[in-house]
Amino acid sequence: MSVKLDGNILVTGTNRGIGLQLVQQLAQKGGERAHIFACCREPEGTRAEELGQLSTQHPGKITIIKLDTSDEDSIRAAVQAVSRQIGAGGLNLLINNAAINRPASPAPLSTTGKKDMMEVYETNVVGPFVLTKMLLPLLQRAAQSGSPQKDDAGKMSCRRSAIINISTLISSIEKCPETFPVAQMYPYRTSKAALNMLTRCQAEDFKIHNILVTAIHPGWVRTEMGGEEAPLTGEESAVAMLSTMSSLSNKDSGMLVDWQGNTIPW
Amino acid sequence: MSVKLDGNILVTGTNRGIGLQLVQQLAQKGGERAHIFACCREPEGTRAEELGQLSTQHPGKITIIKLDTSDEDSIRAAVQAVSRQIGAGGLNLLINNAAINRPASPAPLSTTGKKDMMEVYETNVVGPFVLTKMLLPLLQRAAQSGSPQKDDAGKMSCRRSAIINISTLISSIEKCPETFPVAQMYPYRTSKAALNMLTRCQAEDFKIHNILVTAIHPGWVRTEMGGEEAPLTGEESAVAMLSTMSSLSNKDSGMLVDWQGNTIPW
Repeated sequence: MSVKLDGNILVTGTNRGIGLQLVQQLAQKGGERAHIFACCREPEGTRAEELGQLSTQHPGKITIIKLDTSDEDSIRAAVQAVSRQIGAGGLNLLINNAAINRPASPAPLSTTGKKDMMEVYETNVVGPFVLTKMLLPLLQRAAQSGSPQKDDAGKMSCRRSAIINISTLISSIEKCPETFPVAQMYPYRTSKAALNMLTRCQAEDFKIHNILVTAIHPGWVRTEMGGEEAPLTGEESAVAMLSTMSSLSNKDSGMLVDWQGNTIPW
Repeated sequence: MSVKLDGNILVTGTNRGIGLQLVQQLAQKGGERAHIFACCREPEGTRAEELGQLSTQHPGKITIIKLDTSDEDSIRAAVQAVSRQIGAGGLNLLINNAAINRPASPAPLSTTGKKDMMEVYETNVVGPFVLTKMLLPLLQRAAQSGSPQKDDAGKMSCRRSAIINISTLISSIEKCPETFPVAQMYPYRTSKAALNMLTRCQAEDFKIHNILVTAIHPGWVRTEMGGEEAPLTGEESAVAMLSTMSSLSNKDSGMLVDWQGNTIPW
C-alpha cells in the first residue's frame, strides 16, 4: 500500500488515536511537499505531548494548530492561522477526524439524555460543517491550481482538493440491526448518519469546484474509543486509510467506504 | 383507503399543516375509542385557533396539550399531563410530526450557520428522542394490554403500540444527488437522516416490547413548509398516511416508507 498524498493537509483531533496516527504516517510517507496542519484542542496540554514530539522529529513538516471544533470562535481563529501560513497552492486535503462519543459505551437509552445528543452532534457534525465552510476558499484555491494539464481538468483526487469525513460502520442505517446489540450509542449513531448526509451534500455542492468529498470508516481500531479487543492497530488503520485516500477518484465522491476502500451502504 | 386506528394517539406539531390534518382525519375516521392528544407549542395562541375549533367539533375526542419539543421541561410537563389522563390501556400510537426548517428554502450553504444546524437538530431529532423516551412506559403498557389473543403475541401494529416518525424523501442519503439541486437545506437534511437512524435504533431497541417504529415521508404537501406548487393537499397526505399506518406490521418496523407505503432507501 502506498501513500500518494502531498501538499497542504489539515487533520482535526490529532493529539491521540487515529488522528495522531494519520499525522505520523503522513509525515513519514507523504510526498516531499506534504505539510500537515495538525489540529487539537489543547496543544500545550499533557495529552498532546506525543504530537509535540512528532512535530520535533519531522522539522518543518508539521504545524500544530489549536482548534476546538465545538467552538465557532476557535474554528475561526484556526482557519485564520492556517490561511496566514498556507501558500498560493491552497489546502489540498481536509480530514475531519475529531469526534466524541457520549455517554460511555455501550450507552443504552436509559443512561442517554438530551445533553449527550446535543454535544455529540455539535462536535461530530456541526464542527465539520462549520470548519469545512470556512476552509472552502482554501480548498477551491487548491482545486484551481492543482490541474496543470488540460486532460485532468475534471479529475478529482485527494492530491488535488478533497474533504475526508471520518465516519464509522455504525453510521450505516442499513446495518443497524447487526450493530445495535453490540453498542447502542444513540447520540454517536445519529450524529454519524447525519455526517454521512453532510458528506453527500458537500459532494453535490462542491463538485462544480472539483473538490472530492468522501466519508471513511477507519475500521475497529484499538484506541480509547475502540477499546482493547479491536482487531486493528491505529497504525494499520491509518496506513490503509491513507492508501485508500490516495486512490479515490470522481466515482468515490459522495460515498461511504471502509479503510480498504469497500463501499458501505447508507 | 381505510383508517383502522384506535385507542390513545398522541400527535406533535398539530396547530397547522400535516399535524392539524392528521388530528382532523383521526377525529373523523379513527375508531370509536380513538382519543387524540394534540400537542402544539401555543394552544392559546392565534395560530392554534383551527385546532381549537376542531376540538369543539368533536367533543371528548381531542385533548389539546401544550408542548414545545425543543424544551425538555415542556416535554416532561406534557408527558405528565398525558399520563394523568390516559387510561390503563396506555398510549397506542405516538406520531412525532413537529419539525422546523431553517433557514428558509432553498437554504444554500452560504446563508446557513451553526445556529441553524443546532436548532433544527434539537427540534427534529432530540425532541422525538426525549419525548419517546419519556413516553416509553405508556407505549409498553399499550403493547402489553393490546394482545388479548395468544396468536397475536408477537404481532406489532399501530393499533397496538407504535411510534411513527415523520421523515421526508430528502432524508434519503441515497437520493441526495437527485434532490439536492432543488433544495440544499443542510440542517433539515442532516437532521432527518439522523431521525431515520433514530427510527431504526428505536425499532431494534423496542422490538422486545412489541412496539413498532416506522419513519414516514408524507409526500410533497401544500403546507407552509412545502409551498404552493406541491402536488398533494394536506388532507390527501394525511388520509394516505393514516391508511398506510393502519396496515404496518412487523416487517415495516425500522423502515422508511412514503405516504403510500412504498419503501424509500436510506
